[in-house]
Formats: sequence, structure tokens, C-alpha cells
Amino acid sequence: MSFQGKKLINDPNAVVTEFIEGLVETYPGLQYLDGFPEVKVVLRADVSSSTYNYVSVISGGGSGHEPAHAGFVGQGMLTAAICGDIFASPPVDSILAGIRAVTGPKGCLLIVKNYTGDRLNFGLAAEQAKSEGYKVEMVIVGDDCALPPRGIAGRRGLAGTIFVHKVAGAAAADGCSLTEVTAEARRASEMVGTMGVALSVCTLPGQVTSDRLGPGKMELGLGIHGEPGAAVADLQPVDVVVAHVLMQILSPETNYVPIERGNNVVLMINGLGATPVMELMVAAGKAVPRLQLEHGLAVDRVYTGSFMTSLDMAGLSITVMKVDEGILQRLDAPTKALAWPVGVDGNRPPAKIPVPVPQSPLLKCNELSTRPQELSEHCHTLEVAIEAAASELINMRDALNEWDSKVGDGDCGSTMFRGASAILEDMKKYYPLNDVTETVKEIGSSIRRVMGGTSGIIYDILFKAAYAELKSTNQGTVTSKEWASALQAAIAAVSKYGGASAGYRTLLDALIPASELLQERLNAGDDPVDAFVLSSEAAISGAMSTKDMPAQAGRSTYISSDILASVPDPGAMAAASWYKASALAVKKLQQTT
Amino acid sequence: MSFQGKKLINDPNAVVTEFIEGLVETYPGLQYLDGFPEVKVVLRADVSSSTYNYVSVISGGGSGHEPAHAGFVGQGMLTAAICGDIFASPPVDSILAGIRAVTGPKGCLLIVKNYTGDRLNFGLAAEQAKSEGYKVEMVIVGDDCALPPRGIAGRRGLAGTIFVHKVAGAAAADGCSLTEVTAEARRASEMVGTMGVALSVCTLPGQVTSDRLGPGKMELGLGIHGEPGAAVADLQPVDVVVAHVLMQILSPETNYVPIERGNNVVLMINGLGATPVMELMVAAGKAVPRLQLEHGLAVDRVYTGSFMTSLDMAGLSITVMKVDEGILQRLDAPTKALAWPVGVDGNRPPAKIPVPVPQSPLLKCNELSTRPQELSEHCHTLEVAIEAAASELINMRDALNEWDSKVGDGDCGSTMFRGASAILEDMKKYYPLNDVTETVKEIGSSIRRVMGGTSGIIYDILFKAAYAELKSTNQGTVTSKEWASALQAAIAAVSKYGGASAGYRTLLDALIPASELLQERLNAGDDPVDAFVLSSEAAISGAMSTKDMPAQAGRSTYISSDILASVPDPGAMAAASWYKASALAVKKLQQTT
Repeated sequence: MSFQGKKLINDPNAVVTEFIEGLVETYPGLQYLDGFPEVKVVLRADVSSSTYNYVSVISGGGSGHEPAHAGFVGQGMLTAAICGDIFASPPVDSILAGIRAVTGPKGCLLIVKNYTGDRLNFGLAAEQAKSEGYKVEMVIVGDDCALPPRGIAGRRGLAGTIFVHKVAGAAAADGCSLTEVTAEARRASEMVGTMGVALSVCTLPGQVTSDRLGPGKMELGLGIHGEPGAAVADLQPVDVVVAHVLMQILSPETNYVPIERGNNVVLMINGLGATPVMELMVAAGKAVPRLQLEHGLAVDRVYTGSFMTSLDMAGLSITVMKVDEGILQRLDAPTKALAWPVGVDGNRPPAKIPVPVPQSPLLKCNELSTRPQELSEHCHTLEVAIEAAASELINMRDALNEWDSKVGDGDCGSTMFRGASAILEDMKKYYPLNDVTETVKEIGSSIRRVMGGTSGIIYDILFKAAYAELKSTNQGTVTSKEWASALQAAIAAVSKYGGASAGYRTLLDALIPASELLQERLNAGDDPVDAFVLSSEAAISGAMSTKDMPAQAGRSTYISSDILASVPDPGAMAAASWYKASALAVKKLQQTT
Repeated sequence: MSFQGKKLINDPNAVVTEFIEGLVETYPGLQYLDGFPEVKVVLRADVSSSTYNYVSVISGGGSGHEPAHAGFVGQGMLTAAICGDIFASPPVDSILAGIRAVTGPKGCLLIVKNYTGDRLNFGLAAEQAKSEGYKVEMVIVGDDCALPPRGIAGRRGLAGTIFVHKVAGAAAADGCSLTEVTAEARRASEMVGTMGVALSVCTLPGQVTSDRLGPGKMELGLGIHGEPGAAVADLQPVDVVVAHVLMQILSPETNYVPIERGNNVVLMINGLGATPVMELMVAAGKAVPRLQLEHGLAVDRVYTGSFMTSLDMAGLSITVMKVDEGILQRLDAPTKALAWPVGVDGNRPPAKIPVPVPQSPLLKCNELSTRPQELSEHCHTLEVAIEAAASELINMRDALNEWDSKVGDGDCGSTMFRGASAILEDMKKYYPLNDVTETVKEIGSSIRRVMGGTSGIIYDILFKAAYAELKSTNQGTVTSKEWASALQAAIAAVSKYGGASAGYRTLLDALIPASELLQERLNAGDDPVDAFVLSSEAAISGAMSTKDMPAQAGRSTYISSDILASVPDPGAMAAASWYKASALAVKKLQQTT
């Protein structure tokens, strides 16, 4: 599994100091003590022990759990975070340096996750600081609900510790005394339970990943230092995982957290490092109704994100904390800590009713279109033109498919066939052929209904833009120049949204020369039908010229230029062909009438 | 690689809708349109199109990039995000629904990452919305600097798009017109360049992971949809990677971004989903000085985090954007978008000078201790007691190691030997034996200097707590009762920080019975030395009783009870032994004088 061992780092032994350097580059409000490599302390840039008139709240422990704890330093939360090496407790001198740097006359509270090394090192530092005259208290958080307490070790400290940081930090910012801050933190620590689930084992910098967990397995009740969990099980849908974990946390047998039906709680879904936000949110969306319906709890806040990780471990932990108004106020209190989530507070109805999908404002005034009983001459021409264009595409199916199989997906003919067939069918049924503009719109709808894919959207845009142009310039019959303007507007829209222009080996290489010649001849005063026929020749030669163009998009870009030179772009050929067929049909109609 | 395919989800086809449900559970300020599964639109809960008097800013695209784009919905940034299926462009009807839901009379701006599907679908929706009477503009962002523009496709849209969201959102919140918001967004999109590096290929829900990238390889210039990057290279230290990527983005040959020496820029280090915060911060810490020193740029802001991911891809992208006061003001403007980072604004000195490590406040008044020329009788007793205790531990090295090899790490005797030897050595050199209290403190220092490990910290705490107690209760000689109180305080501290109490198979099982008996006999009026000797017997029997205790910590918890029953706890035996040796030595001194 060397695959997993890859990391974007430099010296594996310098990751923590380099992390801290990057952290303070990112956040102007953070600073660090100049004691690398032994002393790794992140602190508020605006706090100096000599003038600080609040209780300081300090936490820390082994690194590798980022953003914890350094990311929770900021006004209203931690005053300093003491960083050990990866998964290793920080040494006493480092903790002492942090205490001395931020502790003023009101003293400091150390919040320690329950791991033996952390307890001892923070404990020794606390005793030393006391002998130096500092007021120091310590609260140990052991929120793990996966394992029974194991003797001295007790329940491990997990992500629930972050709630304790927040409560203590808010109490301190509120001006509480050390005794009060300590009491609030201790009370919070007794209200909170956590359990984790891992899908992978984390990799320490410079080391090989353990393949302890096999494929299709998950570990229940993991620790955050990569130590084995309580049990290995087959991977289940996250619904099942969430249900199991909540049951364990809230178990009345173990009674780890004093939560009963009817209580108010907050929920944390915490990613362990490599878990996408999407998965965390899915778990959050499942946990809330389960807490409400199965466990009879009111869920006042949901905190979803990666707050206390284990390097690149895939998985999550769930934390449930009992709250009252006082604790909720502490959780909602403003903080400048950068990793504490924003936008979580506010009223939460028991269930969120989604917003109805708004309807098109056109819908109410739109009548269903119907094919008129009789067609004006003008509109009969339109029908003939559409019929000829569609029939040509139907005839060309195999040829277009064959060209496309050499330079693309091989389905150009079939796609155009679908569109053309739908147009013929719908025209007979309901195209309002006496209204040219609305008929153009309906052609777009037929295409949209059946064609799909990029070419479907391109043709939809083409007809939509033509419709908008026609609608803006005329009220009844459409003049030749208006038709030409509509073609020009359609080309501009396709170019804008599709990104192509002349020479890109697309349908525009047929339509742009046709449009240009059409404008030119009409401006010169030619007969409109002759100009239409002439421009259709320009479309065909434009389409044929695509043979000499390099591919600019899609699969064609991977095809050799020799092969490309043997085939015109099928999309351009299709466009030129329907354009020409309709021009010739209109000309023929002119000659016979 | 089925290992990597593991995900905490339910139905792979429902991940996006379940994500949105979890998102709105977490954030009361967000809502979604009731159009699942086709229409997947996240919008501000406080915006209704009929009453909204600002320009709406809408973005979106395929899902799998969370927190983008739904996480950037909020006052001051996006008004709505249109979510497609994983890596698939949202359908036109979904985009239209979003436009209709939040667009008021001032119109809306669509910000679209440059991918063909997104351009076409958003483009078609824009045209449709316009024909319904909405004012709609569209800005396409193509910030990729890894590949030359490829025809129609052009440069891909990457994480730099988020800066465009922020600029546009802030301009809209500032009351700007659609024309102004569009102009600001377009200008921002022309200032920004991005390039990515991947260490792994992402896994789509329900699919198997590609092993396209081998071990020890990285992909340069990746797309965010898992498409192959521009080049595969051997994994390098992140310093080298950062230098290369910045060089590509700022290359004067391609001239993708109009950035020149002396310009001001902002930097984004964006994680791709499975990259630990630690690695992102390391990269940020390297990129800033490189931009300053190599490229001559002033770095005004650094945004480090996972903003636009590719599911669980490991790797990062780097974005550099040229800024002036106007853009900086837009980036700094407040927003309620939950994934926009807080605490990034503020003055940034060219280099951050870390805070000096504070010294102990005791240091200045502390004189170096020296061994006195002559010892008082009281202090001679102290010396005899210390010498006897230390010598006993030196003698017991092999026995303690042997016991420990059965139930622990096998080094208990060696560790105690180191501590005892240091005490004897230091005592001769400089213990201030005429000051009992300070001598106790120095014993702690000797232990701390050489012992290390858990037992070193435990003994350090023991002597530190005894010192603090002695210091608080006496000024000169120490009475028997004060000694007894010091022992009691020391035991309490070890229990508090170490987590053990009586019956946990530790040194406390020797010291607690001794302390209790000592207090009792002294209170009964016994001769202090006799009480000391008596209590040392209690220490020994207490230590022996550990044979019958279950293990509570460390390796011992894995040892069978049969083996445990054959050996006393070596730590308890060590404590009982030095205690008894010192008691007997004091008694002997009493008898001979």
C-alpha cells in the first residue's frame, strides 16, 4: 500500500513546525513561540500574559489532528494550543512555555484529552506553573463511548473535547473566574459522548500504511491515534452505521452520557481527515431524524465538518452533547477561532420543508399551440422548408454515422435522425405554422425532447436564440432580412455558449459562411430565394473545408490528422445538408407556383 | 483497490440529494428546492425572488466538489447553487428552477466553470430565462494554467472560480447593478490562475478506484473531474512541487494571468478532498516566501483549506490572483457563506516574527543551589535516607527488570537505576541539604534529567507535589506531620494526573497503605521513626498484594492473570523498597546516635 503513503510534505520530521509556519501565514490573528523544534505553541497574536485580563484556555496534545487544536485558537475559544509531534504528547517545557506566554493574573485552564501521556505532561506542567505562582486548573475529557473504561487509561478523549473548548472559551471571554470557567468546562465534559468509525488506517509522514483493515471492512470505535478500534465489521450503508453509533453513545446500560428522552442535544459529525464533505453531510442528514424519532431528542445544533482528524484517515466520528440554555449560549457565542463552524446557530424547525419549485412565468399565459386548418402561402413555404430539411437528415443517417465513427462517437446520424423524426411528427400534430416565430420555438422543443447530448443542446440554443431574435423584430410575417438576422443571432449564441468559432471543425463552419453570404446577397438586392440557394452552396463548401481543420474538441482531438483529412466534420455536413435541402425546396416551390 | 472504494454512503445514486438534506440540517440559513431527484438547487433561506432587491449570483455544476458550490451560498456570496449529479452538469430545467427561485428585478449573474456541458446547459437556461423576461448574464471562468487552451474546450474552470464567486457576491451585496456585478466578475476571472497536483485518483460512489497513478507518482495539472492531468512525475518534496506549480501559473510565456513583479496577489491553497490540513498548511508556508522572494509579489491574503474538491482525491491546487484595493475589499467583505474562510483578512507583515519563548518567572530569583559545608543533624538524616533509598534501587535493578519482563517492558529496574544513580551523583555535587524543601525539589530535577518515560514523569510529579506542599507549610525544618502531609499530597497529584488509585497495580498500592498508616500512627502519638518503619512494612505488603490485582494499564492488560499472579507490580515493589530502605536507615541512625 505504498500508494497511500504518498504525502505532499518535505522532511517527515519537520511537518509540525512547517504546518505552524503555514498556519500563521494564513491567519494574521495567530502567532507561535520562537522555540522550534522543541517548543511548538500556537497562540493568539493579540494576547500578552502581562496584560491579559481573562482566564486563558489552553489545550493541545499530539499533532496530526488538524485543525485541532491550533485551528481553535482565537478570541472566544482557545488562547493557546500546545502541539506535540505527530500523535505524541507535547513535552512539559513546551506546555510550560505556552502557559507562561498567555496566562495573566486570572489564571489558566488546561483542557486535556484523556491519554496517559497528555495527562502526565500537562499535569506536570500545571504543577510546575503553580509553583511559579500561576493559577492553573485542569479538566480531562474522556468522551469515548466505544469501549468500557480501561483502568487507569479510562475513556479516551475524542472530538467531543472541542465542545468543551468552546464552552470554556466562551465562559472565559465572558469574564468568568478560573473557578467558574473550570466548572463549566467540567460540566460540559460530563455531558458529551463520542464514537468513531474508520474505513482506513492513517499513514504517518514518512511511513508505510498499515493494511490492517481489509477491503469491505470498517472499524468501529476507533481511537484518534490509529490504535485498533473496538471491533471490525463489514462495511454497511451509512444509515446503519449512524444508527449503531448513536445507539452505543446513548446506551442506557453504559450510561456514559446523562441523556434521556425529551432532552435537548447538539450533534457533531466529524470527518477523520480523508472523508469528503459529501459523506459527512449524508451522515448528518441521517443522524438528525434518528435522534429525533428513535431517541426522542430535540436536536438544537448540528456541526458537520472535519474538526479533529487523524491525518488522512477515512471515516467519521459522531458526538452527541446534552445542552441547556446556558451551554447553548456558550456554543453560539461569537469566536474568532478559524475552524469553529459559522452559520450553525439559529432556529431549527423539527423538519425543514423544502421550497416549492417555481413555475415558468410564461406558463400561465401560454396556450397549447395547435396546427392551423389552413396555411397562408408564406406558411406553406415554411412547412415545405422544414419538411425538406428534416427528410434530408433522415436520409443521411448512415452517412453521418459512418463519418462520425471515424472522428467521433459514431452517433451523429442517429442523433440527427431522432431530432428530424420528432420535428416531422410534431409539425403534423401541433406546430402553429401560421405563426412563424412560434413555430421556430416549437422546433426547439421537439429537439430538446428527443435529441439530448451536446448536439441536442447546441440545436436547442440555436432555435431558442433565433426565436428570441424573431420575436424581438417582428409581429406577423417574417421578412428575408429578419430571417437572416435570426440566423446570425443563432450562430452568435451557439458560439458564445459552445465556445467555438470559425475553423473549429463544427457546424458553425457550415452556418457562418452561409450566414455571411446570405446577408451580403440580400444587402445587394438579390432575390431572397436565390440568395438562400447561393448561401446553401457556401454552407456545403464550408462543411467540406472542415476536412483540413484540426480538431478542437471531444474525441476528435485524439485522432490523427491523416484520418481527419479524409472526413468532413459530420456536424457541419448535417447542418449544410439540411440548410441546402430547405433552400432547394423553397426554390422549387417558387418555380412551381 | 477495492480498499479505496469504501464510502460512508447509502445508495450511490442518492448521494447528492442526501448530501443536500444533511447540508440544510446543518445550516439553518440554507434551503433547497422541492424537486428531487432532478432539481437539486440549494438557495439562501432568506431570499424570495419576488422581493429580492439585489443582483442574484448563481453558480453550480457537477457535484463531488463539496463544499463547492453549495457551501458558498450565503449573504455576500452565492444566492443559489445548482447541483448536478456527481461530475455531471446539471440539466437545464434545474438551472432554470434556480434562476426563477432567486432572481428579482435586478437580474442574475451565472458564474460557470469552463466545461462544455456546464457552458451549454447554463447557456440554454440563460436564454430560456431571458425569453421569460429575466435579466441574465453569464461569466465563464477558465483559470487552469496547466494545459494550453484546447480549442472549444479552452482552459478549464478550477478553484479560482471561488474568488470570482466572492467578488461577484460582494459586489451584488453592495447594491451594484447586473452590468456592474458582471463586469467585476469578468475582470476577476481574467486575473486568476490555478494549477493542481494529485497524488491519487478519486473514487466515484459505487465504483472501483482507478490505479492510473502508480506508487511514488504524482499527476501535474489535473482536472477536477478525475480526467488525466497534463503530466505524470515522480513524487517530489512539496517545496519542489510548490515551486514548479507557481512557475507554471506565473509563466511569462503562456501569460495566462497578467501578473508582474511588484504586483499584489492573493493565494489559495486548496485541498482536493483527502489532503490533511497539515499538508495544505505546509504548502502555504512554502508558497508565500516563494511568491515574495522568487516572483517579487506582495501576498496580501492566504486562503488555505479544502474549497473545491474532487471527492476523495489526495492532492492540492494552487491559485494566484492579482488584486488591487477594489478586489481586496470584495474578498474581505463579510459573508455568511459557510465555507468561505474566516480570519484571513488583516494586515500581513512581509515576514512574521515569532514570539520569544517566555522564561520562568522564578529564574531570575533562583540562585544555583550548592551543597552546604556542614549539615545539621536533621539534614544529615535526610542525606542518609536519600542515600539508602537510592542504593536500594541500584541493588534491585536486575530483580525489577526480571519482574517487569514478565508483565511489562522489562526496563523498570534500569529506569529506576538511572534515576537513583543521578540522585546520588547530584546530591554529592549540589543538593542544598540544609534546606529540606529545596532538596526535595532537586530530587525531582535529577529524576527529570535522566529517567524519561511515564515512570519519570510520575516520579517528577510526586516530588513536585511534595515540594509544593512542604513549601506551603514550613519555612525551616520539617516536622514528621509535614512529611506525612507531603507524602499525601504527592500521592494525590500522582493519582490525579496519572489516573490510578488503590488497586490499579501501580506504585500507589505501595504508597497509599504506607501513607495511611503513617498518618494514623503519628496521629496516635507514636515515635515518628517507629511510625515510619511501621508504615514501610505496610508499603511492602501493599506492593506484594499487587500480585492479586488485575492489570489496568499498558502492556500488562494483555497478560494472562496466571502470569500476573506470579509477579508483584515492579513499580510498586520499587516504591516499597526505597521507602523501606530509607525508613530502616533513619531508624539505624536513631539507634547509633
